[in-house]
Parts: sequence; structure tokens; C-alpha cells
Amino acid sequence: MGPGPCTPYPEAMEALGRPIMGHLDPEFLSIFDETRDRLRTVFGTANRVTIPVPGTGSAGMEAAFVNILNPGDTVVIAVNGMFGERMCDLAHRCDANVIPVNFEWGTPIDPAVVSIAAYEAGAKMIAAVHAETSTGVLNDIAALGAAKGDSLLLADCVTSIGGMVLDLDAWGVDIAYGGTQKCLGVPPGLAPLTMTEAAWEQRVVKPRSWYFDLGVIGGHTPHAALAYHHTAPIAMIASLHAGLGAVLDEGLDNCVARHATCGRALQDGLIGLGLELWVKEEDRLAQLTTVRVPDGVDSGALRRELLSRYGIEIGAGVKEWSSKIWRIGCMGHAARLRNVALLLSALDELL
Amino acid sequence: MGPGPCTPYPEAMEALGRPIMGHLDPEFLSIFDETRDRLRTVFGTANRVTIPVPGTGSAGMEAAFVNILNPGDTVVIAVNGMFGERMCDLAHRCDANVIPVNFEWGTPIDPAVVSIAAYEAGAKMIAAVHAETSTGVLNDIAALGAAKGDSLLLADCVTSIGGMVLDLDAWGVDIAYGGTQKCLGVPPGLAPLTMTEAAWEQRVVKPRSWYFDLGVIGGHTPHAALAYHHTAPIAMIASLHAGLGAVLDEGLDNCVARHATCGRALQDGLIGLGLELWVKEEDRLAQLTTVRVPDGVDSGALRRELLSRYGIEIGAGVKEWSSKIWRIGCMGHAARLRNVALLLSALDELL
Repeated sequence: MGPGPCTPYPEAMEALGRPIMGHLDPEFLSIFDETRDRLRTVFGTANRVTIPVPGTGSAGMEAAFVNILNPGDTVVIAVNGMFGERMCDLAHRCDANVIPVNFEWGTPIDPAVVSIAAYEAGAKMIAAVHAETSTGVLNDIAALGAAKGDSLLLADCVTSIGGMVLDLDAWGVDIAYGGTQKCLGVPPGLAPLTMTEAAWEQRVVKPRSWYFDLGVIGGHTPHAALAYHHTAPIAMIASLHAGLGAVLDEGLDNCVARHATCGRALQDGLIGLGLELWVKEEDRLAQLTTVRVPDGVDSGALRRELLSRYGIEIGAGVKEWSSKIWRIGCMGHAARLRNVALLLSALDELL
Repeated sequence: MGPGPCTPYPEAMEALGRPIMGHLDPEFLSIFDETRDRLRTVFGTANRVTIPVPGTGSAGMEAAFVNILNPGDTVVIAVNGMFGERMCDLAHRCDANVIPVNFEWGTPIDPAVVSIAAYEAGAKMIAAVHAETSTGVLNDIAALGAAKGDSLLLADCVTSIGGMVLDLDAWGVDIAYGGTQKCLGVPPGLAPLTMTEAAWEQRVVKPRSWYFDLGVIGGHTPHAALAYHHTAPIAMIASLHAGLGAVLDEGLDNCVARHATCGRALQDGLIGLGLELWVKEEDRLAQLTTVRVPDGVDSGALRRELLSRYGIEIGAGVKEWSSKIWRIGCMGHAARLRNVALLLSALDELL
């Protein structure tokens, strides 16, 4: 119950162990294509260019940036946590003109401020994190989409995909990526990525990265892997295919509702224990809750006790919040009320 | 029995399905460190900087190039197949001064010619592929190491690691990377990489890639993952750990001998069927055999028959050799005499 990786769905684990097929085997290619269709459903998009990038979540971030930003291109990045900061680092490595718009950690971005900055700078792209894993804050991507003007809009959906309704096409998102190891309930190792035709047309012709070059990676054609680029991480793709199957069998709406119910139960329970949540109610994520460590409590010692005595992992904060907050995930298969109940009982005993 | 991915060792498959731990869980970190130790053994190195890069084999290539080549640095690349060509592409994307030294496909490189070119150009790095997967040719890396002068030496060991003796420290190799899905007998998804202190000291301070930036990826410290960079692909690392365990339990020398025995049996058998091998005997790899498609035989049709009737996958050639040669792997768990016997019988029946 940390900020990810979460406990995967049993279906995703079972698929990992299946016999390995060749990466050009017709049977593998049909699983690959079906995986791309399922990703379109959870992303809420009809985008042709939709693929699992062969790396962990941040590989999706890198693929998105190196395929869009030429040296000198202007990008406006909304920053209210570690993953917004990371976007700035990546954009600098593209030699882009990077304009960060900073907001206090633990509070959401203001879409109006960000979009005005983009308008004034004539930005090629606006980038923001949908669900900030470092703080547990929800940012309003739809509002950014409504105000993006001529800029492309990139959304980091690592911690939202599979646990919240994504409606990228309606929101006006041009590029988005996610991770497998959070609300999708699959082990870490792939970064689903999707891109509109508008973004595709403005992509970098020869990106700085070969490994993440979407022009040669083949994600824009059916049976993408037929044009050999890299050897697909077959076991992980089978696992993603099965994890997506579990989500869609449950029903995406039911799955999202389960995340919401568990998050609310956890947050109510934490408040009931006398703990203080970091984020205001209206800005909170259900799938990732941040709670202040009470005065006099050793954050690390409590986390170790939770792990060794109860078998529950929760996360520390990042940077200066490292010993000041805990990050508690209700993600994927771990988003169950029985887990919430156990964690609340354990915290009650330990505190 | 294609050019990879191969059938993984059962131990590697079993490990994939184990419960997912957190990427900062102390138990995971000790598996991670033990994996790095095992990689040092199969690489034949004591290099401190030894990690599994979180991507497939070509991710190792990209990590090696972006961490060594600054814009304007000179690199001499020995090219006698597709992976040498790919190195040139990657080096160009680093804005390096790229000097390819070309040799006929199906023949080995001449280390003297390559090292003279490097000396004359004052190259920062020489790069070559140890076992060319596109042609089945062995290149002499030790001879390059003996003649490298002041240049760093990079070796692509994707198709050699686990199937041949690697003795990188004795050979004078400064940077090397491999793949998991070939002779190591593990599914695709990681690229083991190792680097000497000399290479580390000359590395790029802020590489173009964040995802592959070895300075922040944490591979230079014990308990590397403690400094959070990306979410480690936990299931794949557990699988690599177990696959390396299988290799070392068999004994690395025994494992290499098994690859050699199977390769020799396959090559003798193919000649016995009247087929012609592409590569001269002294330059052939045991683990990857290239054989000319006989006149009048439909290469693709035969491969499909092999797959559907016998459950055996073999590979086509690449580029203009696509329908002119087959590539047959004896790698990892698939390197068994019973597989060789079945394939030879099947080819005999089909031809």
C-alpha cells in the first residue's frame, strides 16, 4: 500500500508465467494489438498511436518529451511536485526553452495561470501531471485542455490510469503516458503511451533517443512489432494484457468506484485516528493519500514495523517531506476495503 | 530456436510469478545486489558499476552511448552487421563524430584495421559487437582490447553473455552490455551493463537521456535502488536473478560447453542435410547459426510450417538477406541436443 508498485491482479501474475513466444510470433502480435485496444479504452482515446513503451513509467515521460521537443522549442510545465520537476529536467535535456510554473507542493495547479503562461510564450507544449504521486494532489487536466490554445497538451497519467476515469479525447490531451504498476495492477516494466494525430504531425523527425523514437518503434501501425525495432518485453506485455483484462472484466467504472470507495474509507479512518491529511479534501486523490506524521513519531521506524509485523508497505514522503508525511496507496488489486481495515487497525495499535 | 528471445530456464519463469515486493523493500534490494554480483561473474569483471538497465537489449546500447559520448567526441565503430549499424545511428544522435569501419556482412571485423582508425582519429571510444546477431559472426574483442591504445572499448555482448566465456577485465573492455533473452535464458526486458572506473570517470556529466543517466540511476552504489530513480522492473529482476542462478548452478563453463556442443551438432547436421552455412567455420558462433536458404525453397513458408507443425521458431535474415538465410539459435534453455535433433529431423522432412 505504498505509492506503487502495488500488489498486481492475480490475472496479471498468472500471465507473467506463461510460455514465452517469439516477439514476431503471430499469436504474440495479436495479444499486442489487443493490449493496445484495451489501453485506448482506459485512456479514453481513439488515438491510432497507442503503445506500451518498453520501460518503467518514467520511460513514458522520456518518450513523450524526446519525440515532441526540438532544441529551442518552448514548453510550459506546471510544477507542484516531484514529477513536474522531473519533466523540467527532461525538457532541459532536450535543449528546450523550459518555462516552469510553480505551485506550492500539496496544492493543485491553477490551469488559468498555466495556460496564460503558455499563451504568452507561444509554447509548443504544455505539460502537467494528472495525479501527483509525490503529494497526492489531483490536477485539473480538462481545464488545461479547454484553455490550451494552440499548444499541445501533455498529461502524466502514471498514477491515474486504471484508477480514475480518463477521457483524454474529450479533455483535449495530445500526449499522455501511464505506468503499469499502480492502478492498473500490473508489475512495473511498461509505460503505456498515447498520442493524437496533431502531436504525431509535430513530432521530432529524428529524436535524440533511438530507443524511444516513436517513428521507428512502430507504434503507429497495426501489428507494430512486425517492423523489428527492439525485442518486445513479452512477459510484461502478456501481464499488461491480462491486467487490463481484469480491469475491463470488472468494468472500468466499477474499478474506478472501488478505488474511490477505498480511498474515502482510508481517509475517513485516518481522520478518525486523529491524523491530519496533507491535501485539502477537494484536491485529494483517492488512490494515493498523504498524511502528516504525528509529532514525536519516528516515521521510518513505524514503516518498518508495519512491514515486518503486518506485511504492509506504505511510502515515505519525498525531499523535505521525507519524514514528515506518509504516502498510502489504494491502487489496483490492493484497493480493497479489507486492506484498508487492516492498515487502520495496525496504525491504531502502533500509534 | 530463433535469434532470441529463447525459451527461458524454468527457474527464470518461476521467479517471474513470485509476489511483487516494493522496489525499496530490503529483501528486494538484497536480490538486486546479488543479481549485480552474478552479472559480474558472467561478464568476467570486478566492475563496481554493474547494473541491469531497465529496458530490452538495445536500451543497454543506448545507455552505453549516451553516457560516454559528448557532442563532438570521436567514436570508431566496427560494422559488419545490423547491430554495428545501429551503433552508428545511436552515436549520430549523440552528435558525436562517427567513423564507421565497414566489413562485409558474414565476415568478421579486422581488429588491426579498426584500432589503427581509432589511433589516427584520436577516438575517445572504439565500439564493436562481440557476437553479431544479424549474421552469426564472432568478432575478436580481446584483440581490439590489446590494440585500443588510449581509447575506451565498448563491446555489445547481447548474444554472447551466458553462452560464451566473457573475460572483460582481461580483454580490456571498458563498457559492455548484454540482453537477458538470449543465452542467459531469461525473458526479454533488461539489459545488463557494466563499466570500468576509467569509463566512469570519462562519462557525460548530464547525458541527453534522463532515463538512462547512469549518474542518477544509482548503479554505482550498493543498494542502488535506495536512491529512488525509476521503479525497478521487479518481476524481471527476480527472473534475471533466478536465470543467472540456473547458469551458475550448472556452472558457467558447463553452460558454455553445452552451447558449443549444441551449436556444433546443429552445424554438422545442417551440412549433413546438404545445406550451406553462411559463415566460415572459424568465425561461426555456436549459439547462432546462419544457413543459406536452398534455391527453390520459400523461406517464409518453411518457417511457418516449422512453427505450426513442429512448434519450432527459427529466424529470417535481415535486410537483403531476409529470404536468403535462416538464423537458428541454440541459446539458454533451448540449447539442448534434443531440440537440435528435432529441428534437423523437421528440416529433413520439410526439405
